[in-house]
Amino acid sequence: MRDKVLRWCRENAMLSPGQTVVCAVSGGADSVAMLHILCSLREALGVTVSAAHFNHRLRGAESDRDEAFVRKLCDDWGVPLAAASGDAAARARETGESIEEAARNLRYAFFASLGQAVATAHTADDNLETMLLNFLRGTGLTGLGGIPPKRDFLVRPILCCTRQEVLAYLDAHRLPHVEDSTNAADDCVRNRLRHNVLPLLKAENPALAETALRTAQLLRQDDAFLDCLAEAALQTASAGTMAWRCDALRAEPDAVRTRAVRAMLQTIYIPKLSHAHIEAVDRLLFTDDPSARVSLPSSWEARREYGRLCLARTADAATFVPVPLIPGKTIRIPELGLKIRCEFTKNFAKNRPGTFTFACRCDMIGATNGLVVRPRRSGDALRLPGGTKTLKKWFIDRKVPAAQRGLVPVFADDSGVLAVYGLGQNLDCRAAEGEPAILFYIEKECK
Amino acid sequence: MRDKVLRWCRENAMLSPGQTVVCAVSGGADSVAMLHILCSLREALGVTVSAAHFNHRLRGAESDRDEAFVRKLCDDWGVPLAAASGDAAARARETGESIEEAARNLRYAFFASLGQAVATAHTADDNLETMLLNFLRGTGLTGLGGIPPKRDFLVRPILCCTRQEVLAYLDAHRLPHVEDSTNAADDCVRNRLRHNVLPLLKAENPALAETALRTAQLLRQDDAFLDCLAEAALQTASAGTMAWRCDALRAEPDAVRTRAVRAMLQTIYIPKLSHAHIEAVDRLLFTDDPSARVSLPSSWEARREYGRLCLARTADAATFVPVPLIPGKTIRIPELGLKIRCEFTKNFAKNRPGTFTFACRCDMIGATNGLVVRPRRSGDALRLPGGTKTLKKWFIDRKVPAAQRGLVPVFADDSGVLAVYGLGQNLDCRAAEGEPAILFYIEKECK
Repeated sequence: MRDKVLRWCRENAMLSPGQTVVCAVSGGADSVAMLHILCSLREALGVTVSAAHFNHRLRGAESDRDEAFVRKLCDDWGVPLAAASGDAAARARETGESIEEAARNLRYAFFASLGQAVATAHTADDNLETMLLNFLRGTGLTGLGGIPPKRDFLVRPILCCTRQEVLAYLDAHRLPHVEDSTNAADDCVRNRLRHNVLPLLKAENPALAETALRTAQLLRQDDAFLDCLAEAALQTASAGTMAWRCDALRAEPDAVRTRAVRAMLQTIYIPKLSHAHIEAVDRLLFTDDPSARVSLPSSWEARREYGRLCLARTADAATFVPVPLIPGKTIRIPELGLKIRCEFTKNFAKNRPGTFTFACRCDMIGATNGLVVRPRRSGDALRLPGGTKTLKKWFIDRKVPAAQRGLVPVFADDSGVLAVYGLGQNLDCRAAEGEPAILFYIEKECK
Repeated sequence: MRDKVLRWCRENAMLSPGQTVVCAVSGGADSVAMLHILCSLREALGVTVSAAHFNHRLRGAESDRDEAFVRKLCDDWGVPLAAASGDAAARARETGESIEEAARNLRYAFFASLGQAVATAHTADDNLETMLLNFLRGTGLTGLGGIPPKRDFLVRPILCCTRQEVLAYLDAHRLPHVEDSTNAADDCVRNRLRHNVLPLLKAENPALAETALRTAQLLRQDDAFLDCLAEAALQTASAGTMAWRCDALRAEPDAVRTRAVRAMLQTIYIPKLSHAHIEAVDRLLFTDDPSARVSLPSSWEARREYGRLCLARTADAATFVPVPLIPGKTIRIPELGLKIRCEFTKNFAKNRPGTFTFACRCDMIGATNGLVVRPRRSGDALRLPGGTKTLKKWFIDRKVPAAQRGLVPVFADDSGVLAVYGLGQNLDCRAAEGEPAILFYIEKECK
């Protein structure tokens, strides 16, 4: 298994010499095996290995037992450990996410805050489950690609190994691990698939996890290539801000054109984009009506303006296009002449130099989940000195003209407003000194 | 359901006005519902409807009961019926196919012989099962595309409907049907999936059949487009007969290049082409060894000749590239200067005009399964006046020089030799007057 993982890491250019890789260790079989293998591969890969553990406080004493187990393991093996905790149940109550989503978002925000490559212990069996889950949801080629070997700051060194290989490895090396009692329950779809469906499918093909891994690789290859073509098609067809030439898009093959439409709609950051929306906008390319329109969620619409397809807000007020924020990257909002960068810090120092405007507590926000700069939405609210009010009320208090309100950048994540440019930071998520935080820098650009 | 089928037929340009559509009717729920719906759509679609039934003689009295049921149904509804039968078990014994394969090949050969569009009663549930079966086998994008709405002479008018809709339709119109007792058995993978796995998956997503149908459509669209690009890449890279420029292929994106390699290997008609073969030939494009080779099944090999990738027989003897035959299409063998056409006839007349050389009994051969013109293979045998002998012995008898033998076209299907150009037709499969037959026309081309 060690050699297999080494080959897999090299084939997928997962880690480069000199790098530090942080192993996300829950204490379960998969993550213990991964930590052990990566430690034994330190020299071969030329990397430094550390570990991270996140306590979701969902299973009371069991959660604490797991944390203690991981602390002892890392201590015994001489691996530096970063541990953190967060209340996943509380976050789920606040944001309306499921407990699993909330736990996952807290955990990944913590991982992202470490500012290193983070290795998660997904196996070929996890990939198989993900493919099947996405097949159930009907996600098309993209979802069927399963779990990618690397994405953003995440790498999956043991994705090439089955659960069975992991258990055999632990056994051969007499390694201890803890069991998450919720894995045995049938209360979520993934567990029901794992316990009830997959044994039946594996009875037909005992090597199904390996088969699915290869299938996923092929599908991801096809998917990535088609996405490239769609991106190129959008560039070729571009006809101004949020506008594209219909004839250029119609000339593309179906497979590329429908992907281009999806990519186009993703730029306006519509939550829960459905297949029906993509189809409706695609049909707009072929209509004879030079002013046809399709309503989209979040007060957006797609409309024909003769030979062009345009995306715009339904309200007539001036506004701008939302832009997702990714820690470490700089984005521009050309309509406003702003340049924005956000980044993680492990240890927030109040008097940090630069032009940054605000800093959010990492444990409060879904740092990698829906971080965005966007115009206001109805329902937006935040706490400023003076109390918690809707953004609309704050605008009225501060005498921001109605016609200008659509042009004020709102920094938000899936759980709500983090800050409003010119108004201030939401006090509910302001970072304190010494805490891990996300810093937001805003700069005016010369037009 | 009627309107849904009408829309589906139109969306997929399945039938054109003036056409005759032959419904393949087993007597089961799906095919009875399809026949009833297509009869009711005769005017809306402008088509003539007839029926066909094939008795595989696998279930004794039950098979005969089904045939009688279909005869009475068509009689009652005034639908002309073409019925035929064949011994699937005997064919399976002869050819080494599974019973299901043998039955399917006999049935489709009969359908093909009707020379019309044939409608099969596959439903959205059949598509779901096919997708899942192919996922188990690991077929990549192509297999995950499920059952296409149309292919060759076959159309699937009720592919858009679920099994549940079919049963509700039968119930609402008080239509009778027969049950195939083998459907209840768990002796084949498809039945086990249907009975054990799919109910669990549908508990998670009750609309899974519809979801899978949409997923399949999207995947087929992507697949068809990528295949086009691969075909174009091969043409661009072409460097002589069965040779391609490596630099041109290396310049293609992974997704297109690996498909081009697959398409290249499919032209030499290697049975059971595996993923490992495709990968090995793909690696050949990147090797530094100007004479590297990869052995392929059936005495073929892929080899580098400096900057070219070539496919050739491992034997040094002159030979030609096998070409699959599709009834109704004309193919060329440029190496031999031959033009070959084959077509079905319902009623073979001995003195048919033209230059045709031989005619095969339809019920003897898997007409749509592996029909090919190829060089001889070891083991080839046929009956000619004088007895049944291996082709090698016939060549020796007729004094064909060894160096020429690889250039003699052998007409064959999966079950064996149908005829050898210049030697004669295999007497075991010669068509008699008045029988359905496949006619083979061979013409010399001026070089």
